[in-house]
Amino acid sequence: MASNSFGNVFRVTTWGESHGPAIGAIIDGCPAGVEIDALEINAELALRAPGKSDYTSARKENDQIQILSGVFEGKTTGAPICLLILNQDANSSHYGPIKDLLRPGHANFTYLEKYGIYDHQGGGRASARETTARVAAGAIAKKFLAFFNIEVAAYIKQIGPIISHPKYDSVLQLKNMTYQNPVHCPDSDAAHEMVVLLDQVKAEGDSLGGIIEFIAINLPTGLGDPVYEKLEAKLAHAMMSLPACKGFEIGNGFACVTLKGSENNDLFIHEQERVKTSTNYSGGTLGGISNGMPITGRVAFKPTSSIRKAQQTLNLNKETETLQLPSGSRHDPCVAIRAVVIVEAMLALVLTDALLLNRCAKL
Amino acid sequence: MASNSFGNVFRVTTWGESHGPAIGAIIDGCPAGVEIDALEINAELALRAPGKSDYTSARKENDQIQILSGVFEGKTTGAPICLLILNQDANSSHYGPIKDLLRPGHANFTYLEKYGIYDHQGGGRASARETTARVAAGAIAKKFLAFFNIEVAAYIKQIGPIISHPKYDSVLQLKNMTYQNPVHCPDSDAAHEMVVLLDQVKAEGDSLGGIIEFIAINLPTGLGDPVYEKLEAKLAHAMMSLPACKGFEIGNGFACVTLKGSENNDLFIHEQERVKTSTNYSGGTLGGISNGMPITGRVAFKPTSSIRKAQQTLNLNKETETLQLPSGSRHDPCVAIRAVVIVEAMLALVLTDALLLNRCAKL
Amino acid sequence: MASNSFGNVFRVTTWGESHGPAIGAIIDGCPAGVEIDALEINAELALRAPGKSDYTSARKENDQIQILSGVFEGKTTGAPICLLILNQDANSSHYGPIKDLLRPGHANFTYLEKYGIYDHQGGGRASARETTARVAAGAIAKKFLAFFNIEVAAYIKQIGPIISHPKYDSVLQLKNMTYQNPVHCPDSDAAHEMVVLLDQVKAEGDSLGGIIEFIAINLPTGLGDPVYEKLEAKLAHAMMSLPACKGFEIGNGFACVTLKGSENNDLFIHEQERVKTSTNYSGGTLGGISNGMPITGRVAFKPTSSIRKAQQTLNLNKETETLQLPSGSRHDPCVAIRAVVIVEAMLALVLTDALLLNRCAKL
Amino acid sequence: MASNSFGNVFRVTTWGESHGPAIGAIIDGCPAGVEIDALEINAELALRAPGKSDYTSARKENDQIQILSGVFEGKTTGAPICLLILNQDANSSHYGPIKDLLRPGHANFTYLEKYGIYDHQGGGRASARETTARVAAGAIAKKFLAFFNIEVAAYIKQIGPIISHPKYDSVLQLKNMTYQNPVHCPDSDAAHEMVVLLDQVKAEGDSLGGIIEFIAINLPTGLGDPVYEKLEAKLAHAMMSLPACKGFEIGNGFACVTLKGSENNDLFIHEQERVKTSTNYSGGTLGGISNGMPITGRVAFKPTSSIRKAQQTLNLNKETETLQLPSGSRHDPCVAIRAVVIVEAMLALVLTDALLLNRCAKL
Repeated sequence: MASNSFGNVFRVTTWGESHGPAIGAIIDGCPAGVEIDALEINAELALRAPGKSDYTSARKENDQIQILSGVFEGKTTGAPICLLILNQDANSSHYGPIKDLLRPGHANFTYLEKYGIYDHQGGGRASARETTARVAAGAIAKKFLAFFNIEVAAYIKQIGPIISHPKYDSVLQLKNMTYQNPVHCPDSDAAHEMVVLLDQVKAEGDSLGGIIEFIAINLPTGLGDPVYEKLEAKLAHAMMSLPACKGFEIGNGFACVTLKGSENNDLFIHEQERVKTSTNYSGGTLGGISNGMPITGRVAFKPTSSIRKAQQTLNLNKETETLQLPSGSRHDPCVAIRAVVIVEAMLALVLTDALLLNRCAKL
Repeated sequence: MASNSFGNVFRVTTWGESHGPAIGAIIDGCPAGVEIDALEINAELALRAPGKSDYTSARKENDQIQILSGVFEGKTTGAPICLLILNQDANSSHYGPIKDLLRPGHANFTYLEKYGIYDHQGGGRASARETTARVAAGAIAKKFLAFFNIEVAAYIKQIGPIISHPKYDSVLQLKNMTYQNPVHCPDSDAAHEMVVLLDQVKAEGDSLGGIIEFIAINLPTGLGDPVYEKLEAKLAHAMMSLPACKGFEIGNGFACVTLKGSENNDLFIHEQERVKTSTNYSGGTLGGISNGMPITGRVAFKPTSSIRKAQQTLNLNKETETLQLPSGSRHDPCVAIRAVVIVEAMLALVLTDALLLNRCAKL
Repeated sequence: MASNSFGNVFRVTTWGESHGPAIGAIIDGCPAGVEIDALEINAELALRAPGKSDYTSARKENDQIQILSGVFEGKTTGAPICLLILNQDANSSHYGPIKDLLRPGHANFTYLEKYGIYDHQGGGRASARETTARVAAGAIAKKFLAFFNIEVAAYIKQIGPIISHPKYDSVLQLKNMTYQNPVHCPDSDAAHEMVVLLDQVKAEGDSLGGIIEFIAINLPTGLGDPVYEKLEAKLAHAMMSLPACKGFEIGNGFACVTLKGSENNDLFIHEQERVKTSTNYSGGTLGGISNGMPITGRVAFKPTSSIRKAQQTLNLNKETETLQLPSGSRHDPCVAIRAVVIVEAMLALVLTDALLLNRCAKL
Repeated sequence: MASNSFGNVFRVTTWGESHGPAIGAIIDGCPAGVEIDALEINAELALRAPGKSDYTSARKENDQIQILSGVFEGKTTGAPICLLILNQDANSSHYGPIKDLLRPGHANFTYLEKYGIYDHQGGGRASARETTARVAAGAIAKKFLAFFNIEVAAYIKQIGPIISHPKYDSVLQLKNMTYQNPVHCPDSDAAHEMVVLLDQVKAEGDSLGGIIEFIAINLPTGLGDPVYEKLEAKLAHAMMSLPACKGFEIGNGFACVTLKGSENNDLFIHEQERVKTSTNYSGGTLGGISNGMPITGRVAFKPTSSIRKAQQTLNLNKETETLQLPSGSRHDPCVAIRAVVIVEAMLALVLTDALLLNRCAKL
């Protein structure tokens, strides 16, 4: 219900198709008094934009936000914030020849089954273009969080078989390193290997999957709610709602399975007048509620479904055909790269909502 | 908001503490006309009950459902269904000696931080006892799904390092094999190894993690919604809301990362008058909407936090103390085992809600 | 969706049929730390109970609340509060003879049309019995409001053509006068006239309608939200959800129509260091948000549909029949009387929810 | 929570300030396959537009809808529909001189108290300009309803003391008569009297209140839900969320109070193979669910708060000042007139949502 909205108090609604005139987001429930600057939002959008390197789609999206409501004299007023982004360089001519083919790994088949109608131009709502609106909304959430000194970050942990092991002293440094290279990986050695591999896979007309790690620091205790609205459940929902996302884990995640309880339990310690844990295998929550340690986890993205390699498929009459994407069609060899700032955005949205809801926990 | 409720149209609200007089669930939005039999619900509860083998908690829960509303002459009426389960054999005396200690891996610290109050008897809402109510609600969802011939199943895929590889011809057979052994694993060789390992770990006063695989078959196309309410996002939310759950994946999940797009894409084929895919790496959804193939995925559970082994921790005054659980305290060596039927229940709840919502997709 | 729940943060879910084993309410989102005493809730239930005078149904409901969860050592813990009330003296034998008749003014026709099934015993969910659970939940909301010194009250403003004009110095005094007489009207002269009229109507086997006026004082400014969640919209929703309710107005309501703007505008004045208005025609809100003045309004209830007088109707085969309620059937001659404490409860629920939500308005 | 959204399945979110660059609506959950024509929406907007007669504000709003998403080849696709309307002729210069005054009957005081910030230009979200977006969304709901042959209408029932008694054979005829005169009253005699009175009041620099009656026909039985989501509760919520609305009633509403049960009960009759009622005092619902008879009711609007007459008030420093609206400021002498099409829109939104939700009532 209301499948284009996310969040409870801080509620984001996105709209727009990848090849329509515009896309956008409405943010309802942003507290009054948050300082908003269109340039800051544009800077976030630039981190998501394709066309900047060889490893993202060649579509050029120099996205510029228009703030149509909810901000007065540079501050939010409590009214819904309408963010509009015009679609540029949306070339739907590539989709004509393939519009009657079911595209492997794509949603055109399921949309057609569900709605009986399909906007075949560029993926419609299923396109990664939709995530631009999430990044814009996330930029506002980040401003809210910054007021409380909370910082969020994400980076490429893995592409194909190559795993990164970044070294950093602060989240700020981590972020700087992340966006310094075209694969958004803060481990320069791994980044180099990734670039080499991506060049090769791209040449084959193929694609690779990736894993993004996220982190949030300086959170108060108490965020998240028991039972069905655990912080990790909301995070999982947020991340798994991203196109191409296939897995989510909090803390050490699936790796906890081969540990014993005595190894996996984080022990409480007293440090700098605060209760902390000696390790953070849990990823910053206990019973679904933040314990004050960093929130960490990982998100898996499948290899891009749109590949230049020919694939056998069906047409709308259920007859076998070969799908050969037009040579000029523009697709990322690894969607995870551009998803880094999107994961950051979803993390910021979840934490903002949880922070606001937590104000209602006590008398 | 309303953190004890789950679902949109088919909405479940659970309540009750593990050591209070009773627990229960309200199901609002169950369509009228579903046949309900208390014995069937009790049979599901029995699959979750501890005290049946050496590998689950020794607490005896011979749970019997009381249906207090919403059913008339054996059928649902459209009114909210109140399911009540009395707590039996709830021995909170064990908790007295440790009530002032922060328990590693537990929620008493975070609840105390969030609410300023903590019901120290047996875990309160954070206890796995709460999931009994989910199983009861899930039993009703399964009855709804059965009307449409949809079947759900789950089983132990892994405990510690031991991975199972069950062979089965039908989901019915899979279910039968699953509940035939004390570790709920349908691969008898793996099950045997798991039993040996659990005996050893239990003797050490320690615990192990596990992975549950789930499957749903005979689904129509069209379940789930674009963008924020993708079927896999709802499933992730559902599963990550379970106690001790640390990870979720749909289809091949994290494993997709090391595949190329040409390997990972499921190709469309025409079979028995229907559109199918030659493989099912996606796990039954495309763009968040069911494609008619089986829904499959996995859920990771951490090793039980409550272990007999002594652990260093803090008391409420932030002073270091040793936590030594009383010898008679009752805890599962591997929480994943009893979570099998709970995962089934959550799967049924998500699919029922999606099936109802899908009725609104077209004119 | 979730039609048996009310409220956003402070969310009440009720369940149970009038002639089933029990009814109850779950309150999710009550902040931790509210002092709860079952005796206080029972005292509220007693104000709603029938069987106390000649002017309410003869069914005896000596309702006693059972608190099954969410309260620990006398205070709420933040967990859902389960309130259970056993049904007593529920005599469904009267309903046998009329179970195949469409009852004028009743919901059995529409329930049957909607659900295809109808629990013909005593009205099911459409019975006023359901409102007992609202009163219980409202009693907890009142405890929350009392912490902030907010008081709510309601009383009979009108029965049939008789209008009351109570004189009171405080809301406390008003409440005392209200519950001193069997018609819950704080104007003793009007109350006397109402009693005489009700005796006469009852003797005729007929019934009367009534109007309840409500008031809340000591509210902070800022409760309620712009546009679709205006405080008066939530109040209207709350009141119009009561059985037999046909109209709602805030402030001077429909009477404002014949005033001019210059007469109807409340002028701002400065008094005791606070901004007030010289009159309160608006009923305490401006633009849907509380302005600190008393919240006031009125709710209209139709004459009881169940009357002893014979009425022509149809049976389930659409054949004309005469409906003659059994002589022993028990119905209020004026449902508004017992609705006084229910209106208070709904007022308390709306204000509690608005007070909690308002915590999220500013940075 | 999400106070700028309305509806469950068919969910409308509006945004935009009266003097910002644009306003708009997002409609999420509109079923796929509804035919949409921008010209039809513009025609509805024209019915709300001021500046067309002497009896509405002089601000010219020749509103033209832009459909930015959700419609493909003339039909809805199931994706969110973004409707954008540019603000024209928004002259905020009039507000400068009065920006530091609390305006009687207005929301600037309460917004300032709630948010600490106030966009003083033209009323922001509290402006009736917001309702333009509701009309646009309502136009789409009407298209959905038309598919099921359901028609909605509204008209001026009363202005000041003048009551209309329209005579009509069909809802179509009623609608035609309504929009034929400048006061949107289908009783030409009453309309003439209203015009005379409004001329006089306008000359005084004052304003009048009004009552709108609404009607919907050809509804199926079963719309609306028991307990908290009764159809009349949703309608009341919808109408009371309109600016200046002070009262709501369904059926005979407050007038039922002076009737006896035997007079007020609608008797069931068998007519044209259908179950009907001989009268329709209930206004088309029983127990909150539509019974197939016309849905009818009334909504009260206060006299416009903005009047040319001087009024005493406070400034932001709580000092007494005189508010004298600038001579060129533009306000309706009676806001109810333009609210006619808005009430129609809200009626259409409520019914559309109820119709969709009702698809989930039975197995």
